[in-house]
Amino acid sequence: MSTNESQTQTPPSEEAGVTKNPSKKELAKLERQRRRQEAAAAAASSISAVSLEDAADPLAANYGDVALVDMQSKPKTGRVWTQVSNLNGGLKDQVVLIRGRAHTIRAVGKKMAFLVVREAGFTVQCVVTVAPDLVSPQMVKYANGLSRESVIDVEGVVSVPDVAIKGATQQVEIQVRKLHCVSKAVPTLPINIEDAARSEVEIEKALQAGEQLVRVNQDTRLNYRVLDLRTPANQGIFRVQYQVENIFRKFLKRQGFIGIHSPKIIPGSSEGGAAVFRLDYKGTPACLAQSPQLYKQMAISGGFNRVFEVGAVYRAEDSNTHRHLCEFIGLDVEMEIKEHYSEVMDIVGSLFVKMFDHLNENCRNELQAIGRQYPFEPLKYLRDTLRLTFEEGVQMLKEAGVEIDPFGDLNTESERRLGQLVLEKYNTEFYILHRYPLAVRPFYTMPCFDNPAYSNSFDVFIRGEEIISGAQRIHIPEILAQRAEECGINVQTISSYIDSFRYGIPPHGGFGVGLERVVMLFCALNNIRKSSLFPRDPQRLNP
Amino acid sequence: MSTNESQTQTPPSEEAGVTKNPSKKELAKLERQRRRQEAAAAAASSISAVSLEDAADPLAANYGDVALVDMQSKPKTGRVWTQVSNLNGGLKDQVVLIRGRAHTIRAVGKKMAFLVVREAGFTVQCVVTVAPDLVSPQMVKYANGLSRESVIDVEGVVSVPDVAIKGATQQVEIQVRKLHCVSKAVPTLPINIEDAARSEVEIEKALQAGEQLVRVNQDTRLNYRVLDLRTPANQGIFRVQYQVENIFRKFLKRQGFIGIHSPKIIPGSSEGGAAVFRLDYKGTPACLAQSPQLYKQMAISGGFNRVFEVGAVYRAEDSNTHRHLCEFIGLDVEMEIKEHYSEVMDIVGSLFVKMFDHLNENCRNELQAIGRQYPFEPLKYLRDTLRLTFEEGVQMLKEAGVEIDPFGDLNTESERRLGQLVLEKYNTEFYILHRYPLAVRPFYTMPCFDNPAYSNSFDVFIRGEEIISGAQRIHIPEILAQRAEECGINVQTISSYIDSFRYGIPPHGGFGVGLERVVMLFCALNNIRKSSLFPRDPQRLNP
Repeated sequence: MSTNESQTQTPPSEEAGVTKNPSKKELAKLERQRRRQEAAAAAASSISAVSLEDAADPLAANYGDVALVDMQSKPKTGRVWTQVSNLNGGLKDQVVLIRGRAHTIRAVGKKMAFLVVREAGFTVQCVVTVAPDLVSPQMVKYANGLSRESVIDVEGVVSVPDVAIKGATQQVEIQVRKLHCVSKAVPTLPINIEDAARSEVEIEKALQAGEQLVRVNQDTRLNYRVLDLRTPANQGIFRVQYQVENIFRKFLKRQGFIGIHSPKIIPGSSEGGAAVFRLDYKGTPACLAQSPQLYKQMAISGGFNRVFEVGAVYRAEDSNTHRHLCEFIGLDVEMEIKEHYSEVMDIVGSLFVKMFDHLNENCRNELQAIGRQYPFEPLKYLRDTLRLTFEEGVQMLKEAGVEIDPFGDLNTESERRLGQLVLEKYNTEFYILHRYPLAVRPFYTMPCFDNPAYSNSFDVFIRGEEIISGAQRIHIPEILAQRAEECGINVQTISSYIDSFRYGIPPHGGFGVGLERVVMLFCALNNIRKSSLFPRDPQRLNP
Repeated sequence: MSTNESQTQTPPSEEAGVTKNPSKKELAKLERQRRRQEAAAAAASSISAVSLEDAADPLAANYGDVALVDMQSKPKTGRVWTQVSNLNGGLKDQVVLIRGRAHTIRAVGKKMAFLVVREAGFTVQCVVTVAPDLVSPQMVKYANGLSRESVIDVEGVVSVPDVAIKGATQQVEIQVRKLHCVSKAVPTLPINIEDAARSEVEIEKALQAGEQLVRVNQDTRLNYRVLDLRTPANQGIFRVQYQVENIFRKFLKRQGFIGIHSPKIIPGSSEGGAAVFRLDYKGTPACLAQSPQLYKQMAISGGFNRVFEVGAVYRAEDSNTHRHLCEFIGLDVEMEIKEHYSEVMDIVGSLFVKMFDHLNENCRNELQAIGRQYPFEPLKYLRDTLRLTFEEGVQMLKEAGVEIDPFGDLNTESERRLGQLVLEKYNTEFYILHRYPLAVRPFYTMPCFDNPAYSNSFDVFIRGEEIISGAQRIHIPEILAQRAEECGINVQTISSYIDSFRYGIPPHGGFGVGLERVVMLFCALNNIRKSSLFPRDPQRLNP
């Protein structure tokens, strides 16, 4: 099987990007590639280019829109594409072929055009200049007529300018020989990438200088999400999100956890409460799971000592806030515990310190790209995650003049305030608050051994916002059923859950965290919709 | 932060299991552990053991049911648990503490009991014998009175018997000193693990010998899934499933893909067709996505060159077959292609060969455990995945006397037959059939350049069953809209999808595969419900 393409087309990743300074061997390989390209180009009558005008142009085959038939998987030509990210001075004087989006187009008279081509966040400047037997005036006109964001194939010779190139990530230019459009964007885009990529700081600065720059609001961004996603910040955000999930999986695998998948269509409601999406399941009333809680515990009963799940979570709440979504990705963990819920907090602490370290070390470019549009300070966290009891938290607030119900929950405001106090006192923006009042926790939470008004539970905070909830669970079926009833849950609807505790189950605990919230708070984004690819909130079901 | 527990309790995994022959250093550590245990035991008034009878037994503290208060996260005792999988001759004469399920209990008179304790699929024999000042007759009685599947803590001295131990995975015994029950199973379980773990072969054999053994049918298994999951075969199946997902992710990461998450609540229906689950989304009609198809393509438009998604897929079809589920996990891939849909087939071929290799090499124990209950032959596959065109497939069937519509789809029977023919001719049970008739593919499939009756699409088969569908997509919005209409889809409902092609999108393609089907077919299981943790089919919404 030929893996030629898949090897040469590998986009930038942790593994790629090592060819910045090609060795002699690599240069020889590139030379072979170039020869193949030339051979292919000689046989390139298979590219039926359609010139915009003047079919009499003897150089018409060098530019134009690619016909559909030439994009329908004809026999392969053997042409080899180079990634924009891999373009560098080592390729000087060589012919390369790239595919990317027309990021910007700038005409210089009728004889020259500058195209910046963007691929996967990387950009390169391409120069189209009239040259005898190579580039016709018609070709320059064609280049200048391209619409931004159109996908184009550019073939040309790599050159290294004497001065630094502004407005492109790669420090080489391409002297264009061939230019073909693979996919035309509409001439007037609903939002310009340039506008969508602009920071608030830039807009304010311009305003002070008397210039009004376009500000793309969050709703417009989401309406045209595929355009919005092309900004460097968004390219960064979703690569960071992917890494958050990767570290979560890798860390837990090393700790002996296995990944499971539990059903999201369930009978009854997953944890009680009214805010569920209901549906008809073949004549039976059903709803979408508010969490994998019951199922991950059943997996523990099923003999899997340590499990995790990455899956969709549904909340029908009418929460129109910066931090709530109706559909999000839950990162859930459940594990046997031997003696103490601190065993779960140990996992939480180590996991997140590992994650933060990894992001800071391995996602520098992504974090910088995000920071350029949405400036943020790196998260402050300790090597050993700080743990405070809820009582201690209440006391700290009290000493700061904030009185709260010692057996109620923290509201958003008191969470923020406590976050500030903790930051001042302990110099960390990531900490665990545990031993919550039992009354504010779900029915399956284990009460404390020494005071039933408290529970073996915890929340975790990043930058003053709650992000993780966890606890030891009640594993005695009689007590579980009793607590469910006390919390107003119809025990009938969760009978197979409670029954699963009658067949022997070890003491256990776990936690859950929203993937989008981790990214939002790590990068101090002001809206969770920024870290959801296609967000769902009470007002939005599109796209 | 103390990570004491999380380090010593790591369950068996690829990384664990290295302490089979402890070094001197490790032995010294174990000795220190033992001393700590003794110290803890001396202070063990914290374990409020409740004897079954005769509180006057001076050894009553050595056994009994653990009181709730002692499982509510009291201050830690410092006791250290050993995993059953780590028990071996190197621990001879040392005191160990284990937690597991009472797998079997066998009384030998009133002075002795044999307990087999199971943890994460590993088992060890524990012997309770009356001994002065150590084990009372009441303790033996307590042991014999335990119900199977109860979770127990066993402390005792490791011994190495002269003869091989049958009925346990570990070749050591524990001479029990302390025995406490953490979670009691009901005395009569709805299904016995022993029965659930029995192979069809064993049942038939016994029947021929005149003995009727219990056969647990699939429905009963699913009704009591948490018990059924405890069988060695099921422990294997879900560990294999986890590995399938891991290899999928790892391979694609290396190839420069990034993982995304798309919404499952969507407006309209994802690919047309009536069989969707409908729900009310805050007053707007919505449904559950039948695939992430449209969203993964929109991610390509959004500038992510190569994406994959692991997520739930919903099909409301009334398919009561061995291979259909109403909710399953889709492994989806979408990627830019330069010239040819074979670039996608390259990824499919390499990915699955890598996956099969990995499973065969690294999941031997799991595959053996599955095979003991559900015997199967290892999958036959080639290093370079075989590719046949649909026309070639039709021809092979024709030569074998099976006439099918050359522009229709294969039915289950002809798929099976073709699988046999391919196996005979090419010695592989894994192959790709491509260039399907356009009429049997979804609207977004790119027609062939040379014959619009065919399409740039493929299916992949394992053991004669279709498992993967893939294709090049139409990336020209006008043609896409036209094809959608021709296929009877209301273009209005997918307008944001079609619009996303108006902003420039490279030619692209991808494929989708069901996680449960990969596991089912790799292990030749006869029912997809066996490879779904809590399956959903037209008849089943529970547990």
